[in-house]
Amino acid sequence: MKKEILELSQAMKNHSIDAYIVTSSDSHASEYVHPHFRYRAYASGFTGSAGTLLVMRDADMTEAFLWTDSRYFLQAESELENSEIKLMKIGEPGVPSLEDFLSETLKNGAVCGADADTVSCGEGKGLIAAITRAGASFKNIDLADEIWKDRPPLSSSDNIFILDERVTGESATDKLTRVRAFIQNISADIHVISGLDDIAWLLNLRGNDVKDSPVFYSRLVISKDECRLYAFKEAFDENVKKYVSELGVRLLPYNDFYDDFEKLFSGKTVLFDPGKSTYAVYDRLKKISRVLTGENPSDRMKAIKNETEIAALKNANILDGVAMVRFIFRVKKAARESEAMSELGAAELLWKKRREAGAFSESFETIAGYKEHGAIVHYSADKTSDKQLENEGFLLVDSGGHYNLPGGNGLISAPAAGTTDITRTIALGPISDEMRDNYTRVLMGVIDLASAVFPENATGAQLDTLAHKYLWEKGLDFKHGTGHGIGFILNVHEGPQSISYRGMVPFCEGMVTSDEPGVYLDGEYGIRIENDILCKKAERDGMLCFETLTLCPFEKDAIKKELLNKKQLRFINDYHKKVFSLISPYLSDEENAWLKSVTSPI
Amino acid sequence: MKKEILELSQAMKNHSIDAYIVTSSDSHASEYVHPHFRYRAYASGFTGSAGTLLVMRDADMTEAFLWTDSRYFLQAESELENSEIKLMKIGEPGVPSLEDFLSETLKNGAVCGADADTVSCGEGKGLIAAITRAGASFKNIDLADEIWKDRPPLSSSDNIFILDERVTGESATDKLTRVRAFIQNISADIHVISGLDDIAWLLNLRGNDVKDSPVFYSRLVISKDECRLYAFKEAFDENVKKYVSELGVRLLPYNDFYDDFEKLFSGKTVLFDPGKSTYAVYDRLKKISRVLTGENPSDRMKAIKNETEIAALKNANILDGVAMVRFIFRVKKAARESEAMSELGAAELLWKKRREAGAFSESFETIAGYKEHGAIVHYSADKTSDKQLENEGFLLVDSGGHYNLPGGNGLISAPAAGTTDITRTIALGPISDEMRDNYTRVLMGVIDLASAVFPENATGAQLDTLAHKYLWEKGLDFKHGTGHGIGFILNVHEGPQSISYRGMVPFCEGMVTSDEPGVYLDGEYGIRIENDILCKKAERDGMLCFETLTLCPFEKDAIKKELLNKKQLRFINDYHKKVFSLISPYLSDEENAWLKSVTSPI
Repeated sequence: MKKEILELSQAMKNHSIDAYIVTSSDSHASEYVHPHFRYRAYASGFTGSAGTLLVMRDADMTEAFLWTDSRYFLQAESELENSEIKLMKIGEPGVPSLEDFLSETLKNGAVCGADADTVSCGEGKGLIAAITRAGASFKNIDLADEIWKDRPPLSSSDNIFILDERVTGESATDKLTRVRAFIQNISADIHVISGLDDIAWLLNLRGNDVKDSPVFYSRLVISKDECRLYAFKEAFDENVKKYVSELGVRLLPYNDFYDDFEKLFSGKTVLFDPGKSTYAVYDRLKKISRVLTGENPSDRMKAIKNETEIAALKNANILDGVAMVRFIFRVKKAARESEAMSELGAAELLWKKRREAGAFSESFETIAGYKEHGAIVHYSADKTSDKQLENEGFLLVDSGGHYNLPGGNGLISAPAAGTTDITRTIALGPISDEMRDNYTRVLMGVIDLASAVFPENATGAQLDTLAHKYLWEKGLDFKHGTGHGIGFILNVHEGPQSISYRGMVPFCEGMVTSDEPGVYLDGEYGIRIENDILCKKAERDGMLCFETLTLCPFEKDAIKKELLNKKQLRFINDYHKKVFSLISPYLSDEENAWLKSVTSPI
Repeated sequence: MKKEILELSQAMKNHSIDAYIVTSSDSHASEYVHPHFRYRAYASGFTGSAGTLLVMRDADMTEAFLWTDSRYFLQAESELENSEIKLMKIGEPGVPSLEDFLSETLKNGAVCGADADTVSCGEGKGLIAAITRAGASFKNIDLADEIWKDRPPLSSSDNIFILDERVTGESATDKLTRVRAFIQNISADIHVISGLDDIAWLLNLRGNDVKDSPVFYSRLVISKDECRLYAFKEAFDENVKKYVSELGVRLLPYNDFYDDFEKLFSGKTVLFDPGKSTYAVYDRLKKISRVLTGENPSDRMKAIKNETEIAALKNANILDGVAMVRFIFRVKKAARESEAMSELGAAELLWKKRREAGAFSESFETIAGYKEHGAIVHYSADKTSDKQLENEGFLLVDSGGHYNLPGGNGLISAPAAGTTDITRTIALGPISDEMRDNYTRVLMGVIDLASAVFPENATGAQLDTLAHKYLWEKGLDFKHGTGHGIGFILNVHEGPQSISYRGMVPFCEGMVTSDEPGVYLDGEYGIRIENDILCKKAERDGMLCFETLTLCPFEKDAIKKELLNKKQLRFINDYHKKVFSLISPYLSDEENAWLKSVTSPI
């Protein structure tokens, strides 16, 4: 057994713990986390973003299990090889859920531990019910702290920055007023916010604690008269401290939150969002206060982008389009001229173009998957897998950037800001008729969703089928969601709306969502096309529609015109015309000639 | 205040009850009920199928409220006029739900009563939570029995009949075995079935206790060793009694169920379907047994029609198509030749044609709405509203039949059986271009849904948008579900699957569902087109599709060809060809000439 597991097993023995659960989460239910919270990766060796480790000991026998979902089966198999950790493939026949496994395996009277501050509230309720069913008990304990010698301390670097109102369009004061009105309206006394993106949005502040996600570790507690920000003070320079103080927000040490807990919440009616908090917070709250579990108002408020944000985001999409067009032109040229370039090299080139265009960061690690690597939905090239690009087949590139240019830049003179997320599948040379057929069906899904008209209360679940329909007709499908919300200089995956069969949040004017169907042929190639779409009022009363924000041509050579209906054909030609007119002013002559040819009508 | 409400208020006073709830349900969560359960209509005067009456008294002041949904707003307004009962329009702004109203209005210490055997389990839980929140208490009491002098006694007439295996395809013995295997598999001791359609399906018996729904009042209790049928014995003739006895089923008086309750369930693990039982049963069960709330296995089993049922249903649809074609031919002729015919007359004519074709009953009361009456989704003509048909505009006819011909009839020599549900919107003369445009959009929705290909786990929610899309594009919509399951010689509305944004049950091969989008222009006209569609395996592995069972031409003169895509045009021409070839053998020369012209290619 892996030595890190044996260390953990020894610590369990010292604390009389029979089973121990290690999640991949932080204390804020974040999707991407600070390295401090990567104990699951340290102990198991599995580095994927989602997975739960369970270690069980009985006498001196230690067993370990890792649950992960289909996105990570291949990666987990390879990373767990020779570790003696058993891979539990979620959703596969005969594989019990962690809850079922615990309730069947734990002995009566056993003790099962976990750090309840890294277990989401909903997950925690389920686990504790399962542990109780087995006649076992739960112990909240963080064993990582005592075992993991080089654990990176949780802290912020000194780079928290204030967003300009020329890009946010609404002051933090006004946002706090809106949230306070919501709290008062539901008769709560106090509201605790754990979501890092909610806090960043509310205060118009951004940080750099998580790679590619401009958030900072903190908790916000807001009542009628008071607002407390528990955060790492060292990350706030004098200017930001002054700003925070002028907002009427008291800056307190991050770790004081639990010390102040009793004083803050005892006897109060507390608005609490179980979706973005940990079980530890919930468990303590429910003992001393009346908990109103419900919608965290910032969640929906920040999903609805205001006019200033939308205008800045449209400009950011021009800059992003310039970067993408330059990149595609260059990568195609390299393939055509047999210039050496690999997947990692392409990702590096793209970040260079994006930085030149004005991005201050990528919005997530670029996925550049060539040929069969494109079929791995969450592919991440490393030195071993890195594939050389050739003059044939598909290269799938999924990437994005964060922009924060309140005064514009050399390319654009107006405010340009926000977060982008775009996927293009690029033909590097000849492709088969079958590949063109599949590419076209994915594109028809992108278009039918982007051109839908729907009533104001419609949900993502109602729209989802539009993106699947043409693939289903051919017996094909994709298993990931069709669309996720996108933050504004914030998390590239943002709630509450989504487009998937599970998306139950009604769409509203101002929401920005991705539109990204795909098709993945194992061992052959992957196709995904992703545009960001803005929800807005349609011409007809009571109806909504989308406007496509992303500006980058589709792969014209991969489109089978005979599959398209008239509306789809018109969409493509209109879109390409718009891309050309908005992007071409920023290109070299050579790039421009290429863009003209790839955006000419079909 | 209406005298029936004052009578109820007096009875409430006698029993020290401050508030009393009257539902529209029976003790089996049926949609259509025996007249014994129509106390809500008796007391309030409102005769719609869904609505809840609340009477509150305080000192000598009596107030009454009636909650109903949008289908019934107009009808309730008219029927409650001068009654002093306040109409509570569900879903309208500012109208609280019954639960919210109770929790806000009931005084601390008040007593709120209802007959818990006419409150569904889920509804009951919500009401009791609301009553408790107000600090009030609940009392289970049936006041109708003591007030309603002419209350029709609950009973069955002597006409329960056995279905032939030539139409059911599976013996009751085999069905009981399947249900017992399910019970054993989930480690339950005993299963109580309250759904009248589930019991009828399981025993291959049908009755006549509810108009147009061939069920009989009963409860079935099944364990490994025993099966008890609590029913009205007088409805079973010697032959049926013998059949029941040979199945190993003990026939007991309907009213003995509660007497035997303790003996049957005490200390047992009971499989219980909250969706088809009342709160009274749940409340008693949970006190003496371990309740496994979950899927009632008969519900899904009966939704999946077997090969014998499907073959018989296809033949029943030929007979139903013959009736519909004869009817449409005749009603068009009457309009053209200015022959006197009203909505009620048309409905009567249709039943005559259906009876001639072999139906033994309608499957629900025919909706025949001419011009603006077609815009009332649940329109039911009466002598006052009955409109004369003229040589113009749309007549919307929604109807269906029950067929049970194990040996066929004069028209068809093979087994023909099952239940149909069809809507056609008939142009009785000239219609406007706008009407044609709307008709075509509804039809395009019918076609896109009927020709969808989708993965095996897809739900009705995923398919629903296909039927709405073309209407949404024009700012139009319909608020009812797109499709419901259809019973086999059983309830015309059957679960568990449905096609609507709420339809969360996965589709399976063998399910029969309606496909019925519409559009309703208040005060002008309504359009609905409804076909019954059978879910079956598609050509591609793992994919499903539909086959249209209904056989009756669309309104060719109302179709705007230029709106259709190629696939839709092909669907219409192929469908019309099939209708002609299957229906024409049973028509007169005159009818046949007409059918030929209305099914010729467009």
